[in-house]
Amino acid sequence: MIHNYTIDKQINHRSIRKFKDQHLLPEQLKTLYTVFSHTATSMFMQNASLLHITDEVKKKKIQELCNQKYVGAEGDLLIFVVDLYRNQQIRKQLGKDDGRVHTTDIFFQAMEDTLLAFQNVANAVESMDLGFVALGTVNDHPKKMLKTLALPKLTFPVLGMQVGVPDQEPQLKPRLPQKFTCFEDSYPQDFDVHDLKEYDQVVTTYYDLRDSNRRIDSFTKQITGAKLDEHETDRDELSELLHGQGLCLDWQ
Amino acid sequence: MIHNYTIDKQINHRSIRKFKDQHLLPEQLKTLYTVFSHTATSMFMQNASLLHITDEVKKKKIQELCNQKYVGAEGDLLIFVVDLYRNQQIRKQLGKDDGRVHTTDIFFQAMEDTLLAFQNVANAVESMDLGFVALGTVNDHPKKMLKTLALPKLTFPVLGMQVGVPDQEPQLKPRLPQKFTCFEDSYPQDFDVHDLKEYDQVVTTYYDLRDSNRRIDSFTKQITGAKLDEHETDRDELSELLHGQGLCLDWQ
Repeated sequence: MIHNYTIDKQINHRSIRKFKDQHLLPEQLKTLYTVFSHTATSMFMQNASLLHITDEVKKKKIQELCNQKYVGAEGDLLIFVVDLYRNQQIRKQLGKDDGRVHTTDIFFQAMEDTLLAFQNVANAVESMDLGFVALGTVNDHPKKMLKTLALPKLTFPVLGMQVGVPDQEPQLKPRLPQKFTCFEDSYPQDFDVHDLKEYDQVVTTYYDLRDSNRRIDSFTKQITGAKLDEHETDRDELSELLHGQGLCLDWQ
Repeated sequence: MIHNYTIDKQINHRSIRKFKDQHLLPEQLKTLYTVFSHTATSMFMQNASLLHITDEVKKKKIQELCNQKYVGAEGDLLIFVVDLYRNQQIRKQLGKDDGRVHTTDIFFQAMEDTLLAFQNVANAVESMDLGFVALGTVNDHPKKMLKTLALPKLTFPVLGMQVGVPDQEPQLKPRLPQKFTCFEDSYPQDFDVHDLKEYDQVVTTYYDLRDSNRRIDSFTKQITGAKLDEHETDRDELSELLHGQGLCLDWQ
């Protein structure tokens, strides 16, 4: 195992859900923007945008939709946006048709741009001894979120990030051993759930020791549990929403 | 602008397409696996897997499909895989139905896991003074690629990475000024393509100075050009392929 400043931060990553009551310094925010813009981008199309939410009314609405009290609270709230609007406007204003802007292919490339930019910013955050939590909950109620953010067609808020000065020191969450996730040459199709017995025990111990939230859950219990069980959720609006935004129109 | 070891690597990111004729050391590879596994993951589902391709026949096939001579050549080839197979197997082998595994919602969460892991590995790569290029071309011929990689249902190879010891020093590619990508509170819908005039000149100068590849292209020229123009491509197999893989089955 090789160690350096970057890698040591990466392997000590933990989600921070409690921040000190202070905002990012302008210089910190500027630095995150710079890192954002230097992320690798598919075909040099630069299909990602970033929203920094400071308006209190807007933050409150987003918090309600995400249903997590730390969203929009202490620290700063960023929303990472898949953005094909800008390039469509370039084409339109220069007299071209929309071309492939509405295809699933181009949407996926924009998802790549945006999610790579998210993690690039995340690593910059942790390199400055700040912390963050990824907010997948920005899509718990996709239609309402889109309205709250007042985003134009051809955009999609894929992931949020609450970022700030950590005010907690959570335990490192144990991940699947690499033999279950990293493979040489071919994907092994002989997965046997019994091989997870030891890892299940490690995860159970982790929850057992955790101060807050006394949930005691093995990994396989979570995968076989409510999260992945059939249930109704607004998150199933996603495909309809994307079509409404003019994205993935070729999807059959 | 704040500087530290991590951020200085990030803002100096450039794609490397020519590597020295040597492979990653086992310790470097192991380090990348460790960083991969410590990436933030949606709902702790750990829906990403990594393939390290060393088989010469397989590398050759992948190179042909990507149609880029550096793919599978010097250095090492990694394929980042959206993986819902593992969790479906856990549910199945423990007597549960597939639940929400086939939904667009869960697929998107797996995309997030996988692409965040990609960029995390990318930053680890550059922190070790190695270089990489992202290979979106793994989806230039999605069906053939899936067959070549012999991946099971409920998986999808979203992005590749060629990684190694850099054997070139490309110029830093100028990105869109932040006023076009990073916004406070609301997304400005008054974009005017004429405001890109200065940036277009910067990009043109960049191509002008570049040693290899004499293409001289402004940013808006690229966006209004062939990349985004209507054309037939196997990349439009994506939605059909995902359905074939049992993914996004609820997509209307």
